[in-house]
Amino acid sequence: MTEDNTIYIGNKPVINYVLAVVSQFNEGADEVVIKARGRAISRAVDTAEVVRTRFLQGVYPKEIKIGTEELEGHKGDMVKVSSIEIFLAKEK
Amino acid sequence: MTEDNTIYIGNKPVINYVLAVVSQFNEGADEVVIKARGRAISRAVDTAEVVRTRFLQGVYPKEIKIGTEELEGHKGDMVKVSSIEIFLAKEK
Repeated sequence: MTEDNTIYIGNKPVINYVLAVVSQFNEGADEVVIKARGRAISRAVDTAEVVRTRFLQGVYPKEIKIGTEELEGHKGDMVKVSSIEIFLAKEK
Repeated sequence: MTEDNTIYIGNKPVINYVLAVVSQFNEGADEVVIKARGRAISRAVDTAEVVRTRFLQGVYPKEIKIGTEELEGHKGDMVKVSSIEIFLAKEK
């Protein structure tokens, strides 16, 4: 799996990310990773669930990792934010 | 493990849930489950990460499950929301 199979979740509507994930699988990916930080984490879970329940029934969350990342805040200070990685895979 | 070891994440500050999780472990629980739905999912991950990184270093996310639940909306209609369950366990 290459890094190309990673979808980063931002502030766009969930359906945009859902379609990006579906495209990756349709182009032959065996696994797609959904990554998000902070408040976008909920949207990452929504994306994975909409893909699985409405678009690609054979896809499932193979692994889910959570972590903490340090980012530079507005004033140059370091801010800790939570992150999630959802590894979606095709059932074989 | 009994259902008593489950912490449901709502709209309160993260620290409230962090302290609830820490209390469960301090009272002897081997595992604590953090559950959330919808936008509270990000707060559930924050809770798990703050517990692990600042309070109880020997605790880790043993398993993370995501799913979709159907709830009754304001007008009696059914609404689908994403959910998360984070199983925190003590390292042995």
